[in-house]
Amino acid sequence: MPFITIDLFEGRDKETKRELAQRLTEETCRILNCKPEAVHIRFNNVKREDWGTGGVLWSDK
Amino acid sequence: MPFITIDLFEGRDKETKRELAQRLTEETCRILNCKPEAVHIRFNNVKREDWGTGGVLWSDK
Amino acid sequence: MPFITIDLFEGRDKETKRELAQRLTEETCRILNCKPEAVHIRFNNVKREDWGTGGVLWSDK
Amino acid sequence: MPFITIDLFEGRDKETKRELAQRLTEETCRILNCKPEAVHIRFNNVKREDWGTGGVLWSDK
Amino acid sequence: MPFITIDLFEGRDKETKRELAQRLTEETCRILNCKPEAVHIRFNNVKREDWGTGGVLWSDK
Amino acid sequence: MPFITIDLFEGRDKETKRELAQRLTEETCRILNCKPEAVHIRFNNVKREDWGTGGVLWSDK
Repeated sequence: MPFITIDLFEGRDKETKRELAQRLTEETCRILNCKPEAVHIRFNNVKREDWGTGGVLWSDK
Repeated sequence: MPFITIDLFEGRDKETKRELAQRLTEETCRILNCKPEAVHIRFNNVKREDWGTGGVLWSDK
Repeated sequence: MPFITIDLFEGRDKETKRELAQRLTEETCRILNCKPEAVHIRFNNVKREDWGTGGVLWSDK
Repeated sequence: MPFITIDLFEGRDKETKRELAQRLTEETCRILNCKPEAVHIRFNNVKREDWGTGGVLWSDK
Repeated sequence: MPFITIDLFEGRDKETKRELAQRLTEETCRILNCKPEAVHIRFNNVKREDWGTGGVLWSDK
Repeated sequence: MPFITIDLFEGRDKETKRELAQRLTEETCRILNCKPEAVHIRFNNVKREDWGTGGVLWSDK
């Protein structure tokens, strides 16, 4: 613990995920006072046709 | 809020997801009395070999 | 399948959940052409202090 | 119920998933005293670049 | 990894969760050939009024 | 999008969640170049008896 799941639109490159994993882990450890190795982050890449807001798919917006 | 995640077998076309996103949002807004833009729907497409019921993978049924 | 998870603010009464489970199941079966007994719906009741949007907890809005 | 979701690194073959679905269902039924057809298992295959521990992506380890 | 989430009806005692965590970890390690300390199991206790199947809440069945 | 779910041990106070929501949103917006109002964060508070690692419940560690 803690375990962080991030749903985000598909297409982000590895460098962006690398930085996000690093920075969110650092802030989480600082604020929760936990060790980095206890923090897991999982990226869930979502196609725009698989995400709707207000009843409309993002691939249609 | 509300945030709706739908796990369903892979292979549904965009038109089906479009209608499902629209209708589930409409009914959710009507029943929960919330605004459409507050409703998020995410489709999670699952391969039949990644889903088991009764200890048997659906790809084996 | 399909399996539907609904994250919503805590406090909705049973009658509202009853109607939402019924109507979302009916529409899902109609659109996906699946049987009602295949549709599972789980409500995840979230405290306002456990949900943040734009960096602000909903209990602070 | 119960509904079991397994996040695991991508790349496991169908035979492994078959055995895992079978054995976890058997043990769950034995311990929870529930019927096999009530137990659903979903595999969520995660790329190593989509999983970070200690702020480092597993694709970088 | 692997990370296992178990949605189950509320009310199971600690002894049952203890046995389930132990046995599912043992079988997962044996089948996936991974170390016990890599396996995380989270129990998600669900009220019967928060779970619907076939459009009917389990608290109404 | 993005939607961030944080599973963490039960017992964190509101002030800690407030800071975590704020800081993780700020870093996510900076790195993903998205707007704060697009970022949702949900805290999932988990009892130690509902989390097992290495086959042992954290309430038994």
